[in-house]
Amino acid sequence: MKAEIITVGTELLLGETLDTNTHYIANVLKELSIPTYFHTSVGDNIERIRRLLNIASKRSDLVILSGGLGPTKDDLTKDALAEHLQETLLLDDEAVDKIKHHFHKIEKEMPENNLRQAHYIKNSHILKNHNGLAIGMVTTKDNVMYAVLPGPPSEMTTMVEKELLPFLKEKIGGVFVSKTLRFTNIGESALAEKISTIIDAQSNPTIAIYAYTGDVTIRLTANGRTTQECEEKIKQTEALILEPLKPYFYGYDHQTLADVVIALLKEKHYTLSVAESLTGGLCQSKLVSVSGASDVFSGGVVTYQTSAKEKILCIPSELLLKYGTISHECAVAMAQNVKALYGSDIGLSFTGIADEHAIEDKASGTVYIGIAMPNKEPISYCVHFNRGRNANRELSAIFGLNKLRELLEEKGEHYGY
Amino acid sequence: MKAEIITVGTELLLGETLDTNTHYIANVLKELSIPTYFHTSVGDNIERIRRLLNIASKRSDLVILSGGLGPTKDDLTKDALAEHLQETLLLDDEAVDKIKHHFHKIEKEMPENNLRQAHYIKNSHILKNHNGLAIGMVTTKDNVMYAVLPGPPSEMTTMVEKELLPFLKEKIGGVFVSKTLRFTNIGESALAEKISTIIDAQSNPTIAIYAYTGDVTIRLTANGRTTQECEEKIKQTEALILEPLKPYFYGYDHQTLADVVIALLKEKHYTLSVAESLTGGLCQSKLVSVSGASDVFSGGVVTYQTSAKEKILCIPSELLLKYGTISHECAVAMAQNVKALYGSDIGLSFTGIADEHAIEDKASGTVYIGIAMPNKEPISYCVHFNRGRNANRELSAIFGLNKLRELLEEKGEHYGY
Repeated sequence: MKAEIITVGTELLLGETLDTNTHYIANVLKELSIPTYFHTSVGDNIERIRRLLNIASKRSDLVILSGGLGPTKDDLTKDALAEHLQETLLLDDEAVDKIKHHFHKIEKEMPENNLRQAHYIKNSHILKNHNGLAIGMVTTKDNVMYAVLPGPPSEMTTMVEKELLPFLKEKIGGVFVSKTLRFTNIGESALAEKISTIIDAQSNPTIAIYAYTGDVTIRLTANGRTTQECEEKIKQTEALILEPLKPYFYGYDHQTLADVVIALLKEKHYTLSVAESLTGGLCQSKLVSVSGASDVFSGGVVTYQTSAKEKILCIPSELLLKYGTISHECAVAMAQNVKALYGSDIGLSFTGIADEHAIEDKASGTVYIGIAMPNKEPISYCVHFNRGRNANRELSAIFGLNKLRELLEEKGEHYGY
Repeated sequence: MKAEIITVGTELLLGETLDTNTHYIANVLKELSIPTYFHTSVGDNIERIRRLLNIASKRSDLVILSGGLGPTKDDLTKDALAEHLQETLLLDDEAVDKIKHHFHKIEKEMPENNLRQAHYIKNSHILKNHNGLAIGMVTTKDNVMYAVLPGPPSEMTTMVEKELLPFLKEKIGGVFVSKTLRFTNIGESALAEKISTIIDAQSNPTIAIYAYTGDVTIRLTANGRTTQECEEKIKQTEALILEPLKPYFYGYDHQTLADVVIALLKEKHYTLSVAESLTGGLCQSKLVSVSGASDVFSGGVVTYQTSAKEKILCIPSELLLKYGTISHECAVAMAQNVKALYGSDIGLSFTGIADEHAIEDKASGTVYIGIAMPNKEPISYCVHFNRGRNANRELSAIFGLNKLRELLEEKGEHYGY
C-alpha cells in the first residue's frame, strides 16, 4: 500500500498557517508501516483539488485529505472528491442532528450552509468528529482508498485516533500498540543523541521523536499478533530508552506536567498555592486546566507590579530594596508568603525578566523560582532562558512545575539559596 | 504568474522533520503577490522528483524546489531537474573553490562527491549560498521558471533573502500591500454570510477569512503600481466590510485583544486587576503576554476554591451561601473586591463551570464575568460555552477581555445585574 497526504486550505498556500497536520499524519502512517511518497497542499479551489485527486489516484492506493470540511463555500474538499468519484453527496442524519442541536444550544439561528458539514459520499464509512461538527469519511473506488479529515488540528488528531486508526488497523490486520514517553528539561537533539544506537536499531517497535516548547516525547509503536506481545516489545525498548533518559522523564501518553503534579499532590495530601510575576498566571492556568485541580490547588496571586508584591504578598520593602525583585530572596519570600496567605502546604513562586531587556542589572531571560515545601527550608532556583518574551514565560512555568514534581517525588536536589 | 513549491527529502515524508521551508517560501511569494496553487513534498527518489517536475511544469510558471542539494547520493534534486530539462550539469568554478577551501580549512580530505554541491545547469542564474556550500540557481525553459534552493532552513532563508528575492522583484515590478482585520464574538460562517456579496465580488484586494478559537480574521491583499494605490483599494474594501461587522471588530494585523485592552487602559490612564476562578490565571497571562503591561496591569488573584474567595477576596459567606459561587452576585463581588485589594481603577472577574458537569444547579459551560469600572455601578455578564474544559476557559477569557474593551471604548451595553 502506497499512501499520499493532501492538505487543503488557501491559508497554507499563503503561508499564514504552518501545516502541522501533514507531519502528524505522516507519523501515523509510519506507525502503520505504510510508505508515503507524496505530500501536497492545495488551495480552496474545486478544480485544482479535483485535478490533484486525479493525479493522486494514479500513483497511490491510500489518499488522505485534511481540511476544507467547514461550513463556508470555501470548503470544497467533499465536493471535489464527489466530482472526482462521480458520486453525489448525502446528508448524515446523526451529524445533521448534532449541528442543529449545537445551534439550538448556543441560541443562534443555523445558517443553511452549516448542513454541508454533515455531507458524506454514498457507501463510505463515516468518521465521527468528536471535537467539532464536520464529519469525515473513508471511501474506496477502483482500488484507491480516500480518507477525508477536518483541518483544525484538535478535530483532525482526535478523528485519526478514535476513528481512522482503528479502521485502518482492522484493514491491515494484527495488533498495534503505542505508548508515549514524555521528557522535559532536555532538547530534542540531545535526547536523540543519548539514544542514537537504539534509534538506529529500531524496527518493531518504531521510535518517533517529537519536540514541543519545553517538552520532548518519544512514541513507541509495536506491531504483533496480540496486545500482550506488543506490550512486551514496548516494555523492553522503554527500559533501554529510560536507562540514559530517566532524569528527564516525567510521564506517559497524554499526561501533562500539571497532571503529574496534581496527581502527586493528591497522593501526598498536600495543597498548593502559587505567586506569579513574569509568568502572570500561566502556571496557575496550567494547573486549573486539569479537571479536579480544585481538590489540591488552593489558588494564588499575580503580583506583577512591585507594589503588589509589597501590598498583597507583604514582602518587606527593605528586602526588595536590598536584593531587588529579581532575586533568590524575593522568590523565596513570594513562595513563603503566598503559602501563608492561602494557608496551603506548599508555595510556588516565579519572578524574573521575560523581555529582551535587562532589569535591575539582571540579564534578560533570568528567572527565579521559589518553592516552600512543608517542614523544609524554602529553596529557589535561578534559570536563564533566551527565547523571546512568551516562550520564556512558558519555559519558566514548565521548569517550576518540573522542579515541584521532582521535590514531590523526593528526587530534587534540595538546597537552600 | 502561478507558483508552486516542492520540498525534497524522505525525512519529510516520514514525518521526522516538520516542513517549515514551505511555510517560509509561501510567505515570500505572498509578499510578491505571486499566487501559489500547490505545495508538494517528495522523497529522495530521482524518478518521483522527475515525474513531479513534469506535472508542475504543466500547471505552474514558477516552480520553487528546496532540499536535496547536499553531497550524498541521496541528494538528487539538480540531477532530476537536469533530466527533466534535458540539460547537463556543469561545475561552477567559484563554488568548487569554496568547497575545496572549506575542506582545506577543516584539514580533511574532500570526498569527490562534495563537488556535486557546485553543480548548476547551463545558462541558469546562480544563487550563492551564504551559509553553506551547495549553490542554488534559477533557470527558465519553455516559459517555466525553476528556482533551486538548499534544504537546511538557515541556508535556504538566507539564499531567498539575499539572492532569490532581489532577482524575482526585478522580474515582477509592481507593489503588494496586505492588511488584516480582527473580529471576535462571531463565528466564521456567520461572519462570511454577513459579507458574502463582498466576498463574491472580490478581485483586488483579495479577501481571505481565517478562524481561530474565539477569533476570526479577514486578510485583504491589494496589488497595484504604488503603495498608495494599494492602500486606497484596501481602505475602500475595509469600509464595506466594517459596515455590517463593526460590532465584532477589535483590531488590525497582529494585535491581540490583550494588546487592544492594554493600549486602551494606557490611553485612559486606568489600572486593572483581575480575579479568576475557572479561567485560573489565563486572562492575566494574556495581559502579561503584552510587553509593557506592567504600566496598567496591577495584578490579581486566582481564587479557585470557595474558601479562597472568602479569605482572599473577602466575599461574605452569606452571599456565597445565598447565591452560590456561580452567580452574578459573586462575579460582581469578585470584581469589586479585587479592585479594592489592588487599589486599581478597574476590576475584572471570572467565575463559572469549565467542565462538562453541572455545579450548584448551573449547567456546564455557564460563566459569569464581572466588571467594576470607575465611578459606575459594577456589572456582570452571563455566557454559555459548550466546547470542553479548556476551550471554555479560553473563550471565557476572550469574552471578558472583549467586554472590557467595549466598555473602555464606551460601546458596551452598560447594565446592572
